Amino acid sequence: MHTLSARESEPRAEPVTGRTARRQVLRVTVADGGRPGGAAPRADLLATEEPLGIRVGGTAVSMTMRTPGDDIELAAGFLVSEGVITSAGDVAEIKLCDGTTCGHGDHDGLGNIADVTLADGVTVAPGARRNFLTTSACGICGKASIEDICVLPHAALAGDTATFEAATLALLPGRLREAQRVFSRTGGLHAAGLFGAGGELIVIREDVGRHNAVDKVVGWALLAGRLPLSGCVLLVSGRASFELAQKAVLAGIPLLAAVSAPSSLAVELAAETGLTLVGFLRGASMNVYTGPERISA
Amino acid sequence: MHTLSARESEPRAEPVTGRTARRQVLRVTVADGGRPGGAAPRADLLATEEPLGIRVGGTAVSMTMRTPGDDIELAAGFLVSEGVITSAGDVAEIKLCDGTTCGHGDHDGLGNIADVTLADGVTVAPGARRNFLTTSACGICGKASIEDICVLPHAALAGDTATFEAATLALLPGRLREAQRVFSRTGGLHAAGLFGAGGELIVIREDVGRHNAVDKVVGWALLAGRLPLSGCVLLVSGRASFELAQKAVLAGIPLLAAVSAPSSLAVELAAETGLTLVGFLRGASMNVYTGPERISA
Repeated sequence: MHTLSARESEPRAEPVTGRTARRQVLRVTVADGGRPGGAAPRADLLATEEPLGIRVGGTAVSMTMRTPGDDIELAAGFLVSEGVITSAGDVAEIKLCDGTTCGHGDHDGLGNIADVTLADGVTVAPGARRNFLTTSACGICGKASIEDICVLPHAALAGDTATFEAATLALLPGRLREAQRVFSRTGGLHAAGLFGAGGELIVIREDVGRHNAVDKVVGWALLAGRLPLSGCVLLVSGRASFELAQKAVLAGIPLLAAVSAPSSLAVELAAETGLTLVGFLRGASMNVYTGPERISA
Repeated sequence: MHTLSARESEPRAEPVTGRTARRQVLRVTVADGGRPGGAAPRADLLATEEPLGIRVGGTAVSMTMRTPGDDIELAAGFLVSEGVITSAGDVAEIKLCDGTTCGHGDHDGLGNIADVTLADGVTVAPGARRNFLTTSACGICGKASIEDICVLPHAALAGDTATFEAATLALLPGRLREAQRVFSRTGGLHAAGLFGAGGELIVIREDVGRHNAVDKVVGWALLAGRLPLSGCVLLVSGRASFELAQKAVLAGIPLLAAVSAPSSLAVELAAETGLTLVGFLRGASMNVYTGPERISA
């Protein structure tokens, strides 16, 4: 037994560029049965994580740790998810600045800012939503019911009569994986894919944060003038939380599917808003938690 | 082909009690080769997700979606992670109120509040940290470097000379899984386990949010007077983000291990603070991203 010296294995950082970063790591294998253990340096590809600040009208409203790329979509989708905007016309401009271009001086270039200018007449209602201005909305006195943290109209999706074939849904996880350009290399990214009722992939986004991956999809749709996303399926590579269900409803998506489990509150929100929620979509089977009338078997 | 009627499969919500919630779901199976498809209701166990508000001195500072349980630990750990407190002596009292007991009137009992009173002389520095008072700290002008979003001293863990055997580390994921009381039932919870250098499990916490699971572990340690957690390993069931690495460093944990991938910024933070970061800890092998001198093979 020996202690690995820093010298023989010190990881070397290389410049982070884009969505992945290459790094030297030490691969350690423990002796197992007849196989000897060992340690050897090797290159590893990491999912890039960097902060993105979002400003609206010059005021900082959010900071999220995200994988760089599609940042304008991310900012747009975030504002949809916060209930601030509902169409591309609500936004006058979204531009990115890295500090060097926005006149605030000393920066190391690590972070980025998405600078949003809303259209005339569109305003941010302070305290309206959960992520937005945490201090005023987070339950000052314990009124943390669904209604307080989520301003969705009840049965928001009741009018969406789209139906989806179970056999088509079963194909989507495979299509999402095939389309994931980065995940297979880093193992570190969540994916969100938007599909049409026929199972065709419309758009896919990946991110270290699953909420960011969904915001990027929704922001893409907003900027493409495609909101609300009636008749579409949103598939997420992990679990379905309350937050993801809320984002789906705000984007007008009638069916949210997750490869893994939903939370209790995601199911509750789905039931209240008329969202069809499918979990454990794997292989040839799935659990339908709410809205089964949209699924044809 | 027929459309599933709401009548034959309408999920029925049952009261949410504790960490899991039982719910009727529709299990849909697609015809596959010779096997016929079908749909049948069955009971499913969900991981409970509910909001918890955290107040300090009567001011709301955070709201997190969490799995109920160990909420006082969660609030304490959150404040450690925000750099507000470092020992049990910094806290005068943490009490839970569900709205009915805190004199704010109309509540539906869904949410909870952790009400923190700091010890005399302990104060919250506004804007000091990322999650805390988002609007002042989130990069008003793009200064979103590691130094800005994280006030950790560099090389904070350099003095921790603990070492860990690779063969011991390889045993930890199995021990974490064995100890997960809820995960195997819901598939919806992240786990964080604190282990001693000999591989013995000290404490495990589970939550729908992985940051909450870690905050609960750290809060437990604070309240038990065990911070800083020198000589310990923190194992998380998923990926290692910047945020989780930061929480480990603030709790004085010298080794953070993840079953899955770390992000680029987690590795960067670990390198700067002297944290040993292990990823892809599975089977008999692991990737050591930083601090290999703490691992003996």
